[in-house]
Amino acid sequence: MVEALIFDVFGTVVDWRNGVAREASVLFQERGIDIDPHEFADAWRAEYDPSMARIRDGNRGYIALDVLHRENLDRVLSRFGLEDRFDDDARAAFNHAWEKLPPWPDSVPGLTRLKARYIIAPCSNGSIALMTRLAKYGGLNWDAIVGAEIARDYKPQPVVYQASVAALGLTPDRVMMVAAHNGDLAAARDAGLKTAFFPRPTEHGEGQTKDLTAESDWDIVATDMEDLAGKMAA
Amino acid sequence: MVEALIFDVFGTVVDWRNGVAREASVLFQERGIDIDPHEFADAWRAEYDPSMARIRDGNRGYIALDVLHRENLDRVLSRFGLEDRFDDDARAAFNHAWEKLPPWPDSVPGLTRLKARYIIAPCSNGSIALMTRLAKYGGLNWDAIVGAEIARDYKPQPVVYQASVAALGLTPDRVMMVAAHNGDLAAARDAGLKTAFFPRPTEHGEGQTKDLTAESDWDIVATDMEDLAGKMAA
Repeated sequence: MVEALIFDVFGTVVDWRNGVAREASVLFQERGIDIDPHEFADAWRAEYDPSMARIRDGNRGYIALDVLHRENLDRVLSRFGLEDRFDDDARAAFNHAWEKLPPWPDSVPGLTRLKARYIIAPCSNGSIALMTRLAKYGGLNWDAIVGAEIARDYKPQPVVYQASVAALGLTPDRVMMVAAHNGDLAAARDAGLKTAFFPRPTEHGEGQTKDLTAESDWDIVATDMEDLAGKMAA
Repeated sequence: MVEALIFDVFGTVVDWRNGVAREASVLFQERGIDIDPHEFADAWRAEYDPSMARIRDGNRGYIALDVLHRENLDRVLSRFGLEDRFDDDARAAFNHAWEKLPPWPDSVPGLTRLKARYIIAPCSNGSIALMTRLAKYGGLNWDAIVGAEIARDYKPQPVVYQASVAALGLTPDRVMMVAAHNGDLAAARDAGLKTAFFPRPTEHGEGQTKDLTAESDWDIVATDMEDLAGKMAA
C-alpha cells in the first residue's frame, strides 16, 4: 500500500545539535569566545519555532528557513553579547552550519534499504536549497525533495503534508510520514498519512524529556531507521 | 564558478521516443492493433508543445504535465481511431509510459561523474512526481528536482529557469543549463544562466533535422553527457 516514505529531517535524520555546536565551537575558538557551543546551539534552535509561527499564523508571507535561521542567529548573537564579534560574512558562514549536520549512524544505511523499495523524500521545514546541501553533505540519496517550500508554509500546517503528497502524485494513504517527534506525526495523521516513529533520545542532549517514546498508536514504532527498514520489509 | 548543473530531461537525458514506442508496441500487440508505435509516439509528442502553450500564454492555470500527457493521449487515440480500444484504466496505464523512459547510454555514467563535483537536478517541464519516477526507473541520482512545477509555468518561460535557480539558493551565473535543444539554452542564457549543449541526433528518429549542432556559442559544446563531464573536470 505505502509507495513513499517522507521524513522529518532535523532531529530524525540528522543530529542538528552536535552539528551546529561543532561549527560554533570552531568559530568561538577562532575568536577566543568562552561560551558553551551546545548552549548556543540550543538557544539558536529555540528561536526556530517562534520564527515559523508568524508565517503559520498568516502574519508574514513564506520565507525560506535559511533566512529565518539567519535572522535568528542575529538575535541570538546579540543575546550572548557577541554582536560585535561576527561581521556579515562571518554570520553568513555561521548560518551554513545547518547545511553540514551529521546523519545519525543508522540514517544512511536505513535510508539506502528503504530507497530500494520505496520513494524516499524529506518533508522538512528546511528549504529545497538547504535539503539539497544537507543531502550532499551527509550522503542522503533522496528521490525527491518535498516539504515546506513546496507548500510555502511550515509544519505542522496540514498543507505541508498535503502538498508534499500531491507533489509525489500520490494519495495520503500511500505515503508514510517518518519522524522522531510525536507532534509532527499527529499532524500528518490528521492529514490522512500513515505514520512511523522512532525515538532520538539525545536530540536535545542528555537531559532530554520530550519524544522519548511513541505517544500514540502510530502505524509503525521502531527503534531507529534500520529497524524501520526491517519493519517495512526493505 | 558553476555550482549546479540543471538538465533538460526528455531528449537530453532520456530517449522518450523509443520508450513511449516500446510501451505502445506492447499495448497495440495485446489488442491486435496494426499501427507503427513510433508514429504514435511522434503524434503524442507533437501535442506536447501546443498543450503547454495555453498555460505559458496565461490562458490556463498551471496543470502538471502528467495531466496534459493524459489529455493529449485521449486526443491522439481518437485521431488514430482507437477511442474504443482503451478504457480509462488502460489509458492511465498507457500514460505511465512517460515514467519508464530509458536513459541514453552515456547519461547515467556522465551524471554520476558530474554529481561528485556539482549539484545536479532536472529542470524539465515534467512534474516532480514524473521526474521522481523517471529517476527511479532509470537510476538518475539527482540531488534535487527543480523545473516547471517549482515555477508553475513551462519552459521556455524565464520564470522556470529563475525559480529553479532560486530554489537551489544560487544566482544564475552559478548554474549551468544542459540541453540537447538550442531553444531551451537560448531561454536559459537570456535568464542569465551558463549553457551547455550536446546533440541527440536520433531523438526524433533517423530523419531528424533539428538540433543536430550547436547553433550559438554556448559556454560548453560537448558530444554527450560523458564528454560534458570531462569538459567540466568532473
